[in-house]
This record gives sequence, structure tokens and C-alpha cells, in this order.
Amino acid sequence: MADNKVFRASTTAPVNIAVVKYWGKRDPKLNLPTNSSISVTLSQDDLRTLTTASCSASYSGDSLTLNGQSTDVSGARTQACFRELRERRAAIEQNDSLLPKISTLPLKVVSENNFPTAAGLASSAAGFAALVRAIANLYELPDSPEDLSRIARQGSGSACRSLFGGYAAWRMGDKDDGSDSQAQLIAPASHWPNMRALILVVNAAKKDVPSTSGMQQTVATSGLFQQRIAHVVPANMKLMEEAIHNKDFATFAEVTMRESNSFHSCAADTYPPIFYMNDASRAAIRAVEALNAAAGKTIAAYTYDAGPNCVIYFLEEDQETVVGAFYRFLSGVSGWKDSAAKAQSAVNLPENIVSILKDGVGRVIQTSVGEGPQKTEEYLIDEAGATVQR
Amino acid sequence: MADNKVFRASTTAPVNIAVVKYWGKRDPKLNLPTNSSISVTLSQDDLRTLTTASCSASYSGDSLTLNGQSTDVSGARTQACFRELRERRAAIEQNDSLLPKISTLPLKVVSENNFPTAAGLASSAAGFAALVRAIANLYELPDSPEDLSRIARQGSGSACRSLFGGYAAWRMGDKDDGSDSQAQLIAPASHWPNMRALILVVNAAKKDVPSTSGMQQTVATSGLFQQRIAHVVPANMKLMEEAIHNKDFATFAEVTMRESNSFHSCAADTYPPIFYMNDASRAAIRAVEALNAAAGKTIAAYTYDAGPNCVIYFLEEDQETVVGAFYRFLSGVSGWKDSAAKAQSAVNLPENIVSILKDGVGRVIQTSVGEGPQKTEEYLIDEAGATVQR
Repeated sequence: MADNKVFRASTTAPVNIAVVKYWGKRDPKLNLPTNSSISVTLSQDDLRTLTTASCSASYSGDSLTLNGQSTDVSGARTQACFRELRERRAAIEQNDSLLPKISTLPLKVVSENNFPTAAGLASSAAGFAALVRAIANLYELPDSPEDLSRIARQGSGSACRSLFGGYAAWRMGDKDDGSDSQAQLIAPASHWPNMRALILVVNAAKKDVPSTSGMQQTVATSGLFQQRIAHVVPANMKLMEEAIHNKDFATFAEVTMRESNSFHSCAADTYPPIFYMNDASRAAIRAVEALNAAAGKTIAAYTYDAGPNCVIYFLEEDQETVVGAFYRFLSGVSGWKDSAAKAQSAVNLPENIVSILKDGVGRVIQTSVGEGPQKTEEYLIDEAGATVQR
Repeated sequence: MADNKVFRASTTAPVNIAVVKYWGKRDPKLNLPTNSSISVTLSQDDLRTLTTASCSASYSGDSLTLNGQSTDVSGARTQACFRELRERRAAIEQNDSLLPKISTLPLKVVSENNFPTAAGLASSAAGFAALVRAIANLYELPDSPEDLSRIARQGSGSACRSLFGGYAAWRMGDKDDGSDSQAQLIAPASHWPNMRALILVVNAAKKDVPSTSGMQQTVATSGLFQQRIAHVVPANMKLMEEAIHNKDFATFAEVTMRESNSFHSCAADTYPPIFYMNDASRAAIRAVEALNAAAGKTIAAYTYDAGPNCVIYFLEEDQETVVGAFYRFLSGVSGWKDSAAKAQSAVNLPENIVSILKDGVGRVIQTSVGEGPQKTEEYLIDEAGATVQR
């Protein structure tokens, strides 16, 4: 029966939202980026992926289930992660004959998000971070988060940053083999714990370009993109790291907003142009500008990934002003925390902005900076190797 | 009574729509641009300004009436045009004592557009071109259109191109006094007479930034703009001039679309970002892409100025395919020519694009490449110096 023993391990992993944006690969196969990037890890209380990795001789072959859907494992990105993790396990098995030889056993991975994929959040980042972390736990690998980030990077570029909590940078590196293209902690969540995020989930028509192909079309066709990667991003990386170290929200906010603008401008300069923001997204930008104008200082920053959703960063002390201003006219949508109803905001947003956002925003997510992947005893695969029905 | 003699002259002037875009001044006072630009002059049968310039000792002072509205003449731009034209007249009066001394007389200028200013078309270009041309006619100046373009440029930058018909370039020049920053004919309308334009006039909320201040905010804050003026535009100027000389529509169209994308990307990279296009504008881009895909070659090109309206360039031989595809679902809006109803198009645009354009397009204008300013005996000021009531 030992042949049929089921080995398993579970982890959670967080979503991250970039404040210096990743857009463009210099090596599509290894997922080596054209520029470094920085993100804030969001709290897993609100947004997380739970993944159980297991292996057993009783499995017929490798398998992957995401949110109840059986998913193809033959893709190059998943295969790269499986291969690299198995090689590391095989190496330690060779050095310790007492270890069970599980590196060659079929893998079964089951993963679930606690948020709708439809929300258009970067679920692939949390997903590949959780997959790599869960298998590393299963194999009891000694590798550091930096080491594992190089593996997760090959699954989905921005996944490398989700192996860390708080504030993380993805250093682009310069080696052809990608051995120096990895994520790194800038500061833990505890360094600047009062960072908050309000996500306005915008009702969108389907994205017109999947972002992996989109970014390479930008690299190939945008006349402005070279300026972004050669000059704009390096300057913003420096400013953003200093802003995080100094807990300087005004600088953090300005660089965040400029970076979002720069990324979406390069997308729109692609031929043919790529548009991720819609009229509601742009109204949310005007709303944040109006909030800052009313406050007489920068208390909120907008950023957009490859979709129309607006992520608004702000500090706990401005929670009532920021959350209250949106709750006043969006109280009808789902996702608000109890505190929102009590939030008193002196700011009344202009009616033209309010009416567009009322039409365009389908739900909200209130969250904050959070921790990195957490080992858990919650399993999506039982001891017999069967997927847990929930 | 000779004291009260009224001298007068009338001209018409056209609208021009840039295919290589003017955005950014290196000298705001002299309207010296950061880059050269190229435009197509549109037919005055559809879009023109009619201006009568007059002078008389009987006038109490300089005055300017635009579309029935008395307009302030004390602005630096209008004053610069009046001053330079008067100086030129004064110079020839000095050399010919037989000429009436009219350079010192008060000027009365009355101007009317044959299209609604509300349409958001570049009426200032036609307006200042007509103002300068009309006063030059009144003063019987020997100056060439190139000479006059340096004066019109100081009124409104893009006005310098409206002193020419067909295909005109504004050479940025490099002198500090602006003496080499002037417009020039690339080719007359007769060189490539089958160029057509369909303008989709999009219902817009008011522009959030007037374009004169907008472009200087881009110069000051966009991290991508320097790449545009140093590399993108010079390359596009060369390609566009060759395309016009060779009547190469595919290249003309690609450069036109890339230029529009590049300009609006730099506007969106401004801090705070400037947005001129809305969801309807973007749907029109997808419509043009769908037309070209269906045709299997490039038969249409979109371009956007500082507003949401879509100008679609195409050739006469593709009129039925292009016009018919839009008329099919926009037949209810005003502005179509009789030919549109007969246009048979094989192309059915996707429903999601159609529905957005049906909501967003308020009227259309069908026009074509056309001639430059025309002297006319139609006057907006009568022989007694009174404004003609129409």
C-alpha cells in the first residue's frame, strides 16, 4: 500500500498590484522582462489563492484543477515550473537516501481563489505563486522565496512578486539564462502597515487582447516604448523604492499614477492600439484627482493593470475621506465592509463623474497591504488523494 | 467723405486635419512647435470659414466678429496678426506715395463658418488663416502663402497649414525668431484628388483641458514625449511625404493611424493625464480595423485631433465600402450626401462596435481633399461698413 501513499502540502498565496508596471519581455520563453517592477501585496483575508499540491504513485499522471476546472498541464509555463521543482527535489533525494523518492511521482494540484476570476484581477500571479510554493512545501525544498521566484516567474512573470508580502521588487536582471531575474523584498507589510486599497471592479467588455500577446506587440510596434524602459521606469524604480523606505505617500502616489499612465500610453501606442481602460476607468481617475484636490494634498493614487478595474491606494488615516466619497453613491454594489457605511467624507465628487461610475462599477473590494504565502493545513485534496468537494 | 471710405476684401479658408500631428510648443509666444507636421486640406464645399476684412476712418477701433459674436481683439494672438500685417502694408505705402494710407485705419473683421463650431473641428485654424488672408487681400500685400503662414502661425499654430490646399507641411524650423517656421505645399489637391474623408462627430462631454494649455503640460510632464519629437515624428514626416508623393495609400494610412495613436498616447502620459477620445472614439478605431481586415488591405485610416471626433481618410474607389458600412447603421444622423444611401458595402461591422457608435455618433460630415483660401466677392461687411445681417 505504500505505493499508493499520498504526499500533500497546502499553501495560500496573495494577489499583488504593481505600482511600477511590468509590460514587455526581452525573452518570452524564460519570461525575462524588459524592465524591473514593484508591487504591493494585497491582504489574503480579501484576495487569495489556496492550493494543495500532492503526489502519489496512484495518480495516472500530472493534473491541475483551478476553481473546479480541470486545466491542461502540458503548457510550457506549467511544465517549466513542474520540471524545475522536480529537479530540485531529485537533487536532495540523491544526497539523502532516507528521503522518499517522490520527485518522479505524478503530481496532482488543486487550486481555488476566494475571489471571482471574472473580477479581472491578476489571478495568474497568485495562482502560479501558490502552485510553486505548494509543490516546494510538498518536496520540502530548502529554496528561499528569491529562488522560488525565479521558478514562479516562468509560470507568470508577475507571479514572482506574489512570493513576498508587503512591498516587493522584481529585478529584471541582465543574464540570458534568467538566473538573476527574480523578486526581492523591499519592505515587509509591517514596515508600512497602514496602506489600504479600494478596488473599483468595472463592468467591462472582454479584453480585446490577452496581455501576454499584447505586451509583445507593444515591444515590437510602439515608437514610445523604448523611452519607457530605458528612462521612465529606471527613474520610477528609484523614486518608488525611496518612497516605500521613507513611507512617503505623496511620492508613492505620484509615481504610481504616472506609471499607470505611462504603461497604458505605451499600450495605446501599440499598432494596432491596445485599450484596457474605458470611460468608467477614466472617470475614476478624475474622481481620484478630485479627492486629492479637495484634500489639498495627495491622499489617493489610482493604478490600472491590463483591464478597466481601478485600484486606489490610500492610507488608513484617510480611509473615511476616500471610502466615504465612493460609498456615498456606490453603496448599492457588493463588496463594502461594515466600516464603509459609517465613513464620513467631506468630499462630494462631481456629478458627471458620479453618474459614469454609478453605471460602470459593478462591485468593490476593500483591502490592504498583506503578507506573503502561508503554509496551511487546509487541503483541497484528501488523504486518499481525492479532490475535496466544497 | 473720403475719410469715411470703407476698404474691404473677402476670402474663404479651409479646415485642415493633420496626419502627422502638431502637439507641443518650443516657444509659446511665437507659436514655434516642438516638431513639424503634415495635414490634408478639406474641401470648402463642406467646411470653410468666410471672412471679410475692412478698414475705415469711420470705425471707432479694431473689431472682430466670429459667427455673429463680437470677439475680443486685445488677445496677443490676434494683435500679433494685426500688427505684422499692418507693418507690411505700411512698408509698401512708404515706397508708393500713390497708395491710400490705410495701414493705420481701424480694422473691422467679420467671419462666419459654414459648420457648427460645436462640432469640435479645428475652426481656429480656418479662422486665423482666413483672417490673415483677408487682411492681406485688403492691404494688397505681395507676400506669398509661405510668408503669410508665418503670420497665421502666430494666431493659431495649425492655421499656417490652412493657407494651402491639398497636402501641406508645417516645417518647424530652428531659428529663435521663428522666421523659418512656416507652412509649405507638399502637393496640390490635383496631385491626389481622390482622397476622401468621413468625419464621425462624436457626442462629447466638454474637453477637460483646452488644447493650448494641454500641449504644454505634455511637454512639461510626459516622460514619453521627448521620444516622440526626437524620433517618432521625424521618421513619420519622411514616410508621409513619400507616401503623398507616391500616392501610396497603405503607407499614408498606417502613418496617419500611428501618428494619431502616438499623439493621444503622449496626451494620456501627461500628468495629470489628458484624454480626448472616449469609448465611441475607440469603437470607431475598431470599426476602421474591421473594415481593413474585411477588405484584406488598408482602405481606411482613422485620426483624432484634440477631441473625440473620428476623421476617416479613404480613396474614392473605396467610397461604397467605407461609407456604406457606416451608413447602414448611422443613416438616422444628419450630414450624409445622397450618394451614401446608394452605397453598397459588403462589410457588416461587428454588433458591439455598431451599438457603441449608434449611441455615440451625433452627425457625420462627408468631404474630400480641397483647395486653399479663395478670394471672393461675397462680403460680410457692406460698402457702408455695416455688418451684413444674414
